[in-house]
Amino acid sequence: MYIGIDLGGTNIAAGLVDRDGRILYSASVPTLKERHWSEIVKDMAILAQRVTAEGGHSMEEVEAVGIGCPGSIDQKNGVVVYSNNIVMHNVPMAEEFRKYVDKPVFLENDANAAAMGEFTTCGEGVNSFVFMTLGTGVGGGIILDGKVWSGFNGAGAEIGHQTLVYGGKACTCGRRGCLEAYASVTALIEQTKEAMEAHPESAMHAWAAEHGKVTGRTAFTCAAAGDPVAILVRDQYIEYVAEGICSIINVLQPEVLAIGGGISREGDVLLDPIKAYFAQNDYNKHMKKTDIRIAKLFGDAGIVGAAKVAEAGVTK
Amino acid sequence: MYIGIDLGGTNIAAGLVDRDGRILYSASVPTLKERHWSEIVKDMAILAQRVTAEGGHSMEEVEAVGIGCPGSIDQKNGVVVYSNNIVMHNVPMAEEFRKYVDKPVFLENDANAAAMGEFTTCGEGVNSFVFMTLGTGVGGGIILDGKVWSGFNGAGAEIGHQTLVYGGKACTCGRRGCLEAYASVTALIEQTKEAMEAHPESAMHAWAAEHGKVTGRTAFTCAAAGDPVAILVRDQYIEYVAEGICSIINVLQPEVLAIGGGISREGDVLLDPIKAYFAQNDYNKHMKKTDIRIAKLFGDAGIVGAAKVAEAGVTK
Repeated sequence: MYIGIDLGGTNIAAGLVDRDGRILYSASVPTLKERHWSEIVKDMAILAQRVTAEGGHSMEEVEAVGIGCPGSIDQKNGVVVYSNNIVMHNVPMAEEFRKYVDKPVFLENDANAAAMGEFTTCGEGVNSFVFMTLGTGVGGGIILDGKVWSGFNGAGAEIGHQTLVYGGKACTCGRRGCLEAYASVTALIEQTKEAMEAHPESAMHAWAAEHGKVTGRTAFTCAAAGDPVAILVRDQYIEYVAEGICSIINVLQPEVLAIGGGISREGDVLLDPIKAYFAQNDYNKHMKKTDIRIAKLFGDAGIVGAAKVAEAGVTK
Repeated sequence: MYIGIDLGGTNIAAGLVDRDGRILYSASVPTLKERHWSEIVKDMAILAQRVTAEGGHSMEEVEAVGIGCPGSIDQKNGVVVYSNNIVMHNVPMAEEFRKYVDKPVFLENDANAAAMGEFTTCGEGVNSFVFMTLGTGVGGGIILDGKVWSGFNGAGAEIGHQTLVYGGKACTCGRRGCLEAYASVTALIEQTKEAMEAHPESAMHAWAAEHGKVTGRTAFTCAAAGDPVAILVRDQYIEYVAEGICSIINVLQPEVLAIGGGISREGDVLLDPIKAYFAQNDYNKHMKKTDIRIAKLFGDAGIVGAAKVAEAGVTK
């Protein structure tokens, strides 16, 4: 079995994962990301030992440890080259971790690791996969020929940073008009607020007052209840996502593309119009089509994927 | 050695290519694409025999034949699933070709084959490569881990059909705002004509009168001579290309990206501002950078690439 660790800005989650990608036991502790990185790594190691013991197993049974970590990763040397979420620069994370747990340790970017995790749900025979997460940003992971593709330098798969609107809204990355600036939850909240400002009659005002804030669910919930302004916001947002998906598919043509992140919980309300838009705008008229799905693992993708990174590391 | 055949809408080009990717001898004949496909394949086979003989070699020395062909290709079975350039639907091209030349025959999409050809100029050690052609359309080929990536269905690498301008100009593919609608030579000619219409004082009018038409060179040539309107057209066009390149690099992070097609003959006038734009807009702040280059093989990429497809076919 393997230990998968998902190092996030808020929590460190770790799980004991069997060869079939099932989480046998998992737990999490706060990251407290302002601390020195060595403290964070120490807590990761303690958590790894804890999930193993509390899961009823011993470290002898663990073959390797995988860590999904934000930022640019040097996989070969187990080094975090740079992360601005949890601030790290040239941190030898694998080496530090092994001071506490003497197992092979493999690092991967967190989005790539999550893609590896979600990929396990595709089943045998699927070899190419794109994982698109609609969260605070628009993240992604690309699996080709069964392996993570993140560029020659490990910095790729930034599918949120393709142009959607040339010269459009400022993106967090410094460019303008990236998909992320239109298709992230952050963008949806902004789009919702703009529509509410223009439409004092929208039912979204009551929803926001009741919930104390505007969220990524505001437009979807009020649209489902029939609010015309919310319907416009929701449908426009979905079209942004769908347009981005068309671009990704035209370039990569993965066998499966799964949509994850907070918004993916909307399920078919999100998925059906995306599929319809794709069917209408698909460039590929004569070959098999990419299967667009809602992701299945939600928060567990990171743990399962990190375990898969560990498995790939020891078996290659 | 190998025979590489580049089947184009206007000409069939074939070459005898050695293991180092050098063309020993090449020739071409008109495609006459309105004919039945079996006639075209027959001419391809005759041309293959001709380049071998005229190149001073015999068919015994030829290990395999590669064919770069427009459209959707079933590589495994050597079938042209669909092509609308030279109209073909489920054509068993490899089988037909072998009626004349009894050698292993391998088919690949023409853009992918050209990418394989251009990839040979990158030298040892480079494993990932994107070839972007700025021609009638914006074509592409993607090499990852040293192999063509064209999706699980062979329909990928359509890098010209990523969104650049959401809801923008109509594209030949049926969508709106694709990179191709802004960065192809066709688009540049359109942009040039629009600017000329708005600016009767532009020196581009005299150039067009002298050359009998507006071409992809009009704006570049007049800009070099100092025409302010031509400079605006050229610089805007280059920015469209550069923006598309940024998107491609953010997703794929190839080690090398080469720009080919007619416009690439502009050389550094095209390349330098693209590199500057990329340096300014690059998402990847901490890892190695993609090397953006002008392609080297021009018209020969298709022949060399088709030969490489043959080589890959027999050695895998």
